Amino acid sequence: MSAAREILSMNRFDPGRIGGIDGAIAGKIRRRGEQFGAASVLFYERPIEMVSASGVHLFDADGRRYLDVYNNVPSVGHCHPKVVAAIAAQAAALNIHTRYLTRPVEAYAERLLATFPAPLTNLLMTCTGSESNDLALRIANSFTGARGIVVTEAAYHGNTAAVTEISPSSLLRRRPAAHVRTIPAPDIAAGGDVGARFAAALKAAIADLEAQGLGFAGLVVDTIFSSDGIHADPPGFLRDAAGIVREAGGLFVADEVQPGFGRTGAGFWGFERHGLVPDIVTMGKPMGNGFPMGGVVTRPELLDRFCAETGYFNTFGGNPVAAAAGLAVLDVIAEEGLIDHAQVVGARLKEGLEALMPRHAAIGAVRGAGLFIGLDLIDAEDGSPDAALTSHVINAMKERGILIGAAGLHGNTLKIRPPLPFAEDHAALFTDTLDAILAER
Amino acid sequence: MSAAREILSMNRFDPGRIGGIDGAIAGKIRRRGEQFGAASVLFYERPIEMVSASGVHLFDADGRRYLDVYNNVPSVGHCHPKVVAAIAAQAAALNIHTRYLTRPVEAYAERLLATFPAPLTNLLMTCTGSESNDLALRIANSFTGARGIVVTEAAYHGNTAAVTEISPSSLLRRRPAAHVRTIPAPDIAAGGDVGARFAAALKAAIADLEAQGLGFAGLVVDTIFSSDGIHADPPGFLRDAAGIVREAGGLFVADEVQPGFGRTGAGFWGFERHGLVPDIVTMGKPMGNGFPMGGVVTRPELLDRFCAETGYFNTFGGNPVAAAAGLAVLDVIAEEGLIDHAQVVGARLKEGLEALMPRHAAIGAVRGAGLFIGLDLIDAEDGSPDAALTSHVINAMKERGILIGAAGLHGNTLKIRPPLPFAEDHAALFTDTLDAILAER
Repeated sequence: MSAAREILSMNRFDPGRIGGIDGAIAGKIRRRGEQFGAASVLFYERPIEMVSASGVHLFDADGRRYLDVYNNVPSVGHCHPKVVAAIAAQAAALNIHTRYLTRPVEAYAERLLATFPAPLTNLLMTCTGSESNDLALRIANSFTGARGIVVTEAAYHGNTAAVTEISPSSLLRRRPAAHVRTIPAPDIAAGGDVGARFAAALKAAIADLEAQGLGFAGLVVDTIFSSDGIHADPPGFLRDAAGIVREAGGLFVADEVQPGFGRTGAGFWGFERHGLVPDIVTMGKPMGNGFPMGGVVTRPELLDRFCAETGYFNTFGGNPVAAAAGLAVLDVIAEEGLIDHAQVVGARLKEGLEALMPRHAAIGAVRGAGLFIGLDLIDAEDGSPDAALTSHVINAMKERGILIGAAGLHGNTLKIRPPLPFAEDHAALFTDTLDAILAER
Repeated sequence: MSAAREILSMNRFDPGRIGGIDGAIAGKIRRRGEQFGAASVLFYERPIEMVSASGVHLFDADGRRYLDVYNNVPSVGHCHPKVVAAIAAQAAALNIHTRYLTRPVEAYAERLLATFPAPLTNLLMTCTGSESNDLALRIANSFTGARGIVVTEAAYHGNTAAVTEISPSSLLRRRPAAHVRTIPAPDIAAGGDVGARFAAALKAAIADLEAQGLGFAGLVVDTIFSSDGIHADPPGFLRDAAGIVREAGGLFVADEVQPGFGRTGAGFWGFERHGLVPDIVTMGKPMGNGFPMGGVVTRPELLDRFCAETGYFNTFGGNPVAAAAGLAVLDVIAEEGLIDHAQVVGARLKEGLEALMPRHAAIGAVRGAGLFIGLDLIDAEDGSPDAALTSHVINAMKERGILIGAAGLHGNTLKIRPPLPFAEDHAALFTDTLDAILAER
């Protein structure tokens, strides 16, 4: 079983174990399997039927409440009333494409673009992070005339054909495509200068792409390396890489689908922590708090080239309901001070988790920024990644009413990524529960 | 200028003509250009700012009403109250991914799958038609182990990197990819047996793909050939092609993004008019009446192969708000009898347009099914496609409060594709207005 396969099977319900499940849920799981076939993926050894959600909580069909420490799409809180009201009002007024002018889209583009540094002045609206990264790849290919892309070893950038090729974590039986090179994620635990090591690996990958005649189109990185296990420190470690990318004539594509919209607690975008300005920025998940929307922000000259070669139009992209949802999300982030909140609560949560380390040798590392923290679980004896323990913790957490997931090349990193209104008492509950579960092992 | 370029520039506002526009709209057009850059595409010589819509009408910023004879996304009517209410209620209750069970998704899959013939029992939910066709290509590649795809000359199947390769109408300066073969759309005007001619072209394309060592993965067709100019008759002409596809070991992919959900007035799906069962069916535009959602329906064994090789997950795909919107669309289609309505009103509209032909030599042909009709405009003297006249008609219609667009290899086909509640008096108004505009030339 490859590392990628481990990640994907992590916390995945095994349909072969349906016999061990009783009650009404068993019939629903079977029905889902019949409807979605092999594409059905459900979380947990005993899947959950969810019926409602509010703030940082979800409620299942039995009325049981779960604290959400995992879902980053409902980023300003599940079913935030302000976002819901904006969607309802705009859906009742007008929902049409961008070939007409509409006020919500004009206003949204204005507000969103204001969060970017100067040369990044153009926005393309899509429906998903996958569509955004797919488009970014094509803009990069078109502008550079090159094909080669560098990504990290356990990267995930989305689900289209082109984006899956640059998402090693999605490839189960296939190898990465010929035009893709993977480099290790920048892990501070490896010691030395994280940024220099990452830049050296990048430089070697670029040289290899050029030696193979593929050329170098760009580096695509999630600026907090989510699926690689969350790597945030030290701030600035990506700056050397950005320099290497420019020297080689490629583009720096910042995938902000996960770190963007304030999650790191240090500004609106993950790249800000690194003191660099990307050539292309892609967005998705939290952008509409669950309303399907994504975006690409870039410099005008990159679009000029792309649009001269290819007619691009996105039917649903930039519909005014998405724009209204997006505007409400921006309002809520500002009004509720969610970026500062993520910084404060995230720091407290990280401290609390670090404080568990002396008591639990199974905690190998705690990394992160703001409300995006990775916690490695390892074998206490030999220090190796412990995916089985991680799975145990995830399911034991769920039995205690807490939702959490996993990430990382070895599937042994708890991915701690709650809706941003997550408060200090929620952080304390999570930390105490983890403490108790590890103590019982 | 290639034919494809003609289509894309058809009815597109030329930013170089901004000087000829006055009033508040000029500033908004400039602002759009600054925000969206080269990717900004606006309709009409003088673009419109829309503010609201209801049923078959849109209203602009000056309060002017337009009859919509073009937009097929708001298929059950702009801002249908039942769909709006479903979105608002579900967005307030729960909006989460498919790794949990949810009742709206279970109910929607059940209802949607019931509209398909027996072997098509699995549904994958995506966010757009583009994502659906991207996924269909990969399922076909994975199942057949082959790469070659056949499409029609002016096909449009979406906007991802992979799908743009099979969308000749999007390629401005690039040639179709090496693994793609294009064949002429099945035009009844060419005389003889439409189906036999289409099948023969397909057979030759497959032979060429196989001779080049690419193999044949499948035929991808919009079952009403929208961007090729709308080709619907005689019903059944695709059956021979389906036979050829199977003989060659490929898959028949029916792109139902445009003809699906009752538009043809002859059942739920465009393929039904042809008496065949596809291997893969893709959906998008009208599925959620504007809520971004798409889908792929196929046989379980095709998914088994694909999912064993690639981890596929779509974050927003199958969220319960989309399912609620989709359920409301299915309800409205049934309750308001929109399929029969499309058949009755579409037939009346087609008769009305055909009745104009003796008076206007510029009308070269009227084709279609249900509420999807193509009307060719030609040079009255030599019978050649008249894209300039088509552009004139589109803009003159707009000045009279009617929205219409163009399609076809030569950009000279009026694409008559209104929301389905379009009534006989709307059809009469459109026909009378076309009559008047052509008479004034």
